[in-house]
This record gives sequence, C-alpha cells and structure tokens, in this order.
Amino acid sequence: MLRQPDVRGDFPGLLTPDGAPWHYLDTAATAHKPQAVIDAMSHALGRDYATVHRGVYARSARMTLGFEAARRRVAEFIRARSASEIVFVRGATEAINLVAASWGGSVLQAGDRIMLSMLEHHSNIVPWQMIAERTGAHIDVCPLTEDGRIDLDALETMLTPQHRLVALAHVSNVLGSVLDARRAADLAHGVGAKLLLDGCQAAPRMVLDMAALDCDFYAFSGHKLYGPTGIGVLWAREELLDAMPPYQGGGAMIDRVSFARTTYAPPPQRFEAGTPMIAEAIALHAAVDYVAALGPDKLFAHEAALASQLRDQLRGLNSVRLLGPEDSAGIVSFVMEGVHPHDLGTILDEENVAIRAGHHCAQPLMEHLGVPATARASFGLYSDESDITALMRGIERTQRIFG
Amino acid sequence: MLRQPDVRGDFPGLLTPDGAPWHYLDTAATAHKPQAVIDAMSHALGRDYATVHRGVYARSARMTLGFEAARRRVAEFIRARSASEIVFVRGATEAINLVAASWGGSVLQAGDRIMLSMLEHHSNIVPWQMIAERTGAHIDVCPLTEDGRIDLDALETMLTPQHRLVALAHVSNVLGSVLDARRAADLAHGVGAKLLLDGCQAAPRMVLDMAALDCDFYAFSGHKLYGPTGIGVLWAREELLDAMPPYQGGGAMIDRVSFARTTYAPPPQRFEAGTPMIAEAIALHAAVDYVAALGPDKLFAHEAALASQLRDQLRGLNSVRLLGPEDSAGIVSFVMEGVHPHDLGTILDEENVAIRAGHHCAQPLMEHLGVPATARASFGLYSDESDITALMRGIERTQRIFG
Repeated sequence: MLRQPDVRGDFPGLLTPDGAPWHYLDTAATAHKPQAVIDAMSHALGRDYATVHRGVYARSARMTLGFEAARRRVAEFIRARSASEIVFVRGATEAINLVAASWGGSVLQAGDRIMLSMLEHHSNIVPWQMIAERTGAHIDVCPLTEDGRIDLDALETMLTPQHRLVALAHVSNVLGSVLDARRAADLAHGVGAKLLLDGCQAAPRMVLDMAALDCDFYAFSGHKLYGPTGIGVLWAREELLDAMPPYQGGGAMIDRVSFARTTYAPPPQRFEAGTPMIAEAIALHAAVDYVAALGPDKLFAHEAALASQLRDQLRGLNSVRLLGPEDSAGIVSFVMEGVHPHDLGTILDEENVAIRAGHHCAQPLMEHLGVPATARASFGLYSDESDITALMRGIERTQRIFG
Repeated sequence: MLRQPDVRGDFPGLLTPDGAPWHYLDTAATAHKPQAVIDAMSHALGRDYATVHRGVYARSARMTLGFEAARRRVAEFIRARSASEIVFVRGATEAINLVAASWGGSVLQAGDRIMLSMLEHHSNIVPWQMIAERTGAHIDVCPLTEDGRIDLDALETMLTPQHRLVALAHVSNVLGSVLDARRAADLAHGVGAKLLLDGCQAAPRMVLDMAALDCDFYAFSGHKLYGPTGIGVLWAREELLDAMPPYQGGGAMIDRVSFARTTYAPPPQRFEAGTPMIAEAIALHAAVDYVAALGPDKLFAHEAALASQLRDQLRGLNSVRLLGPEDSAGIVSFVMEGVHPHDLGTILDEENVAIRAGHHCAQPLMEHLGVPATARASFGLYSDESDITALMRGIERTQRIFG
C-alpha cells in the first residue's frame, strides 16, 4: 500500500472548507490534482506564458519546447513508439469523436460493422452511433459475463469480417472490470478489425504499454489522471494517423492554405487545429510525472486492495447488492435495498463522504443490470482505509434512517 | 487612456526572467492573464475542485453553480438573450468547426454558396473548405478595399440567393480592420444567408452586443480575452442551436442513450459532450470580470490610439511599408525593405520586445498583399507608450544593422 499521509498532503482539494479530511470516493468521475499540477498551471499562465509554434521571441520558443516535452512525456508514459503518435485533444470524449469522424468517416461504408460492449460509457457509444448513421454501418453489442466483464468468448463468436472496429473500455467506469486487452486485440485483428480502447479509467491505474496492448487507438482524459480539465490524449498507430483526414480545420494544422487548395500538416499537428491547450499540456506533464514517480503498478495494487476491502465489508450488509467482479480495479458499484442511490449520496455528503450516484453515463449497462442507478465508490491514489471507514459509517447510518 | 501602471502590475507574464519590463506586442496571438485569472484557475483546480452536473455532494453542486455562472457572465458580457445561447468550446477554431459541421452539415447542399473574405484567418477558411467538399457547396471570396477592409460594396454585388452563409472577421487579426458588422448582417440577411462573425480580435477590444450586431453566430477564444487556454465561446441564436444536430457525442449531451435509439439534450448541453473545461470556465469568468471592469470601450480607444501613434512613427521611416487602415483596432502590420520580418523579430527579442512575424494564419491575405510575411505589433490593455518607444528603438537598430 502507498503511505497515504505522504501523498494526501499534496492535494489541496481533499479538505473540507473547515479543513477536515474530505472522503472523496469519486475519483472515477474526476481526480483531484496535486499541488505540483496546480503550480505548473499557474506558471504556464503567468510568468512563463506565451503562445507556441509561432512566436519569433525566446519566450515562445521556450513554451513550444515545454509543450512538445509534455507530448514526449505522455508518449513515454504510455510507451508509444513516437511522440508524433500523441494527439492532444480536449478529453477522451473528443478523442473518440475524432477517431469516429476522421477514421470512421473515411473508412466505414454501408454494411460495415462496429463492435461495442454492453458496459461502455456513452462517450464510447454515441460517437459510433453518429458515424454509423452517417455511413450506414451497423453496431453490435458484446454481452457481459455474469460478474460484469466484457465476454470475450462471446466476442469471438460474434466477430465477422464485416467488423472494421472493436471499441471497448479498458476498465469499466461503473464496475471496475479490467479487459483482457491483448486477447481483445487478437480477436479484433483476427477478423481484420481495429481495436480502440477507452482508457479513461485505466490510464490513472495501470502500467500502459501501447505495443504490449497491441491496440490501434487509445483514448484518455487528463482530468482523470490527476491533471487539469480541458485536455486529453488520443494515441493512434502512426500509420493510421498518417492516413486519416483532418478532423477540425484552422491554424496550426495546415501546410499551405489557399482558396484554390489547402494542404495539411503531418500528424499530430494535422489534428490540432487552433491554439492548443498550452497551459493544460504543461500541467498534464506535471501530472504524469507525479503518477509515474509513485508507480502505476503500485496504484493499481493499492486501489484494487481498497476495492476488495470495501466489497468484503459491504458483503456483510444484507441490504446491499454488490455489482461487478471481485477483482475490480478500484471501482465498486452497489445498490441498497429500499434506498435510492441519490439519497444515500446525500446522506453520505453530510458525513464528508463523496460518492457518485446515477447512471454514470452508462445507461445501457444500467438497463442490463436492471437498476436505474447505482451508488459508486471509486478510489484514487490518495484513498485509504479511513475513507472506507467513513463510507461504512455513513451507510450504516443510512440503513438506520431508512430501516 | 488607461492608467497603465495600475494594470501592468496585475500581469505576472509581463516581466522578463530578470524582472525587467517585457514589451509584449503580440496580444493578437494571445493575451497575458491577470493574477485574478490565474488565482481563479488555482482555486478551481485545488480547494474548490469537483466535477459538474453530476455529483450528489455539495462541492459538486457548488462547482456546477460556478460553471453555469461563468456561462451567464459570458452571456451578459456579449449581451446575449440567454445563457443557453452560450456554448463552451475549446476555442474559436472549434466554434467555427462546430458551426460548419453541425449547421453546415445539416443545411448546406450541392450548389449552395458560402461567402468568406480575403482577410480571413485560416480558422475561418479551412472549416468551410472541409464542409464545402463534403456537401458540394461553393466558396466565394469577398475582396478588400485598398486600405485593407472587407469591401462591403463588393459584397453587396456578389451575394446571391444561393448564399447560405457569410463568415467574416469582426476585426482582422493582421490589419486591425474593423468590419461594419451591422451592414454585413443586413446584406447577408437580404439574400437569406446567415452571418457568422469571427470575434477573436473583437471580443477583447469592443463592446459586444449580439442583438445590435444582428449576426447569427459569433465565435471567440478565451486566451485572447485575457483568460486561460483551452476554452472559447460559440454564441448562436437560440432557434439556430435548437435546430442543429450534435457535433460530438458522449456524456452530458444526451437525453437518453440506448443501443436502439439515443436522444439528445437541448442546447447548450447538446454541444458540450464529455467533462467540460471546468476550471477554464471559472477562470474565463474572472477574465470577463477583469475586462468588463476596465470597460471594453476604453480598451478599444486605448489600443486604437496606440496603433495610431505607432503608425505615425513608422510612417517617418522610409524603409517601412505600412499595411491596413489608418483606424486600426490596435493591430499594426508592416514590412521593412530588405529585412525579413523574422530577422526583425529576432533582433527585437534581444531588446525585450515581442512582435509576431509570419503569415499570421492568413496566407491568402499575404498573397493578396504580395508579401510572404509581415511584422505585426498588436496592443493589449496593458500596452503603453513605453512599448512603442522600445519597438521604435529596436527597429532603428535593425535599420542600422541591415542599412
């Protein structure tokens, strides 16, 4: 386990207005930021501020170096082959929309098929529905195993040569289920399809190695990786990016503009129209440094252990139905008999415990589980047993109120 | 004139690493940020941090109030009819791409025409070229007057009932020319076309009133309005937004998702897929407060007066060719005989003077002007006569070096 007292102090967001500890169990929605990230943002917007890629003065050249160093740091963090495979986007949602519109819009044809799963986040469903409608492609939905994993045996039987893309969550944002990504890649590639992984919940919790995963597209958000809002990452194989048409047009993504004919820059610039998220990239660099120093493998073990402890304690309560697999990556969803998750969340809030209650942007999964909503406790690198104790105290109080 | 000593101290970015004044004349590329904006960002990412629109705990509810207050503040600043006409985007480039893809993609048909001008920024050219290619629409280019304004007399003769859209810069980023937006709106509406204004250079310098402008779409960036990177604003008439299909799919923009059929939220949420730029919106609020307190009318007068002074002084130099109209909104482009703008920029940098040298993302305009690049000095609210003095000193030194 991580030594929590060392890290909690790095996070100014983890205190209540009175200075009491805040038991924040909503890291799957968004992670708090260490002071190093906030400081990097302040310096980038203040004493170091300049635009990138354009200025002839030294400050702009320095900022450009910083911005491109952030790209290289992200590439190194996920073991990409090269920094030019890293496209900075607004967030994972935009990353997936970019792939759907640019790659999907140029490759998909009527009759082609896209494979999703029942547990996908809306951001890995709706972009595919939109491009399917535009191109005439069809969407198939891979079912789940009883304990809430994407059923890769079913995937194997469902895939056909008509499938051009398989798009799956690397870690479920509701259940914490971890995908066997390598097998998914083998299955997808076996029928000639590409594999996109939604890495929002995996990037903050797992050692990422693009070559080992053998996927084709990988998307994640900065704000879930202890970084700022307003930035995310699309990784794609260089040869795919090379062949993809631009997504948005504007400054910085062009080679030469004329009204007769415009030509485009090579990737990643081709996909980064306009002034980029300069300060956000600098702050994301600081976030990656922070997470890398702790060790993603340790974070995974730490949060998985907390999830397991929480599941053990919840199992002791008759009124609780636990969802998802035993070996969750740090995310525990459950429902309490007779108590709407929102009511539970509200009562917990009075005890300085923050959980998420709702459909978690995964309505098809809610329908599959037969619930309108779940309560979800999700751990981060700063979580510890005191958070579980506070949560259990709140749940027991809720039982008494509703009991 | 503004009392500069009062405001310069608010901007930590306006000092060199040695603490000397930095003569920053590249505000048209990006503006420096007052400490109030940096502090707002730090608090939003730190002690106040939470996600929006979803959490059942009080901190998230407070953050949601702050995020929506930012939207209302922007609406008030540009005198929109309602906050639901304000869509937060990554920047002006994305705003224009959103209109091109969503409005253009659903409205434009083969044979329709789009009217741009010769002085547009690439971000108001390339998105239209991309959607024109997809839909079969044609692009026309309105010429300029001799002194570098969009020639509205020519526009009047060129517009036809086939024109569905006129998209023009409110203020030219290269020449500082101010559009008579109301006349442009009347001309566009006269043939049944919509008017989009690229307000990147106008928003930081002019009193904006959407009803008075009578345009249909208005786009600007936060980072040029003394706010953070990573956020911008699309304003559109409510009835246009209502009718537009979503641009990106994902969380927060949906009404209900199922694999059978997904329905979408009303605007502005329909156009804000995924976790939004939360901290950036809060910081943009602070930037708008800062600019509004100084008074955009005063900023315009201040920067126009500085531009006029600079033009007067440059006119005294034989080697300088001045571009653009006399009454520039605070942006002065010029070329020096025998000196490439980049060389000028490099020499000026040694004197702690930052200008922009290049095509300013306006290559068609460069071709029209018959130059590969210009030197551009652009003023901001923190600029004063000492910046002009330092610039002129550097130009005179450059003349001696190259003379």
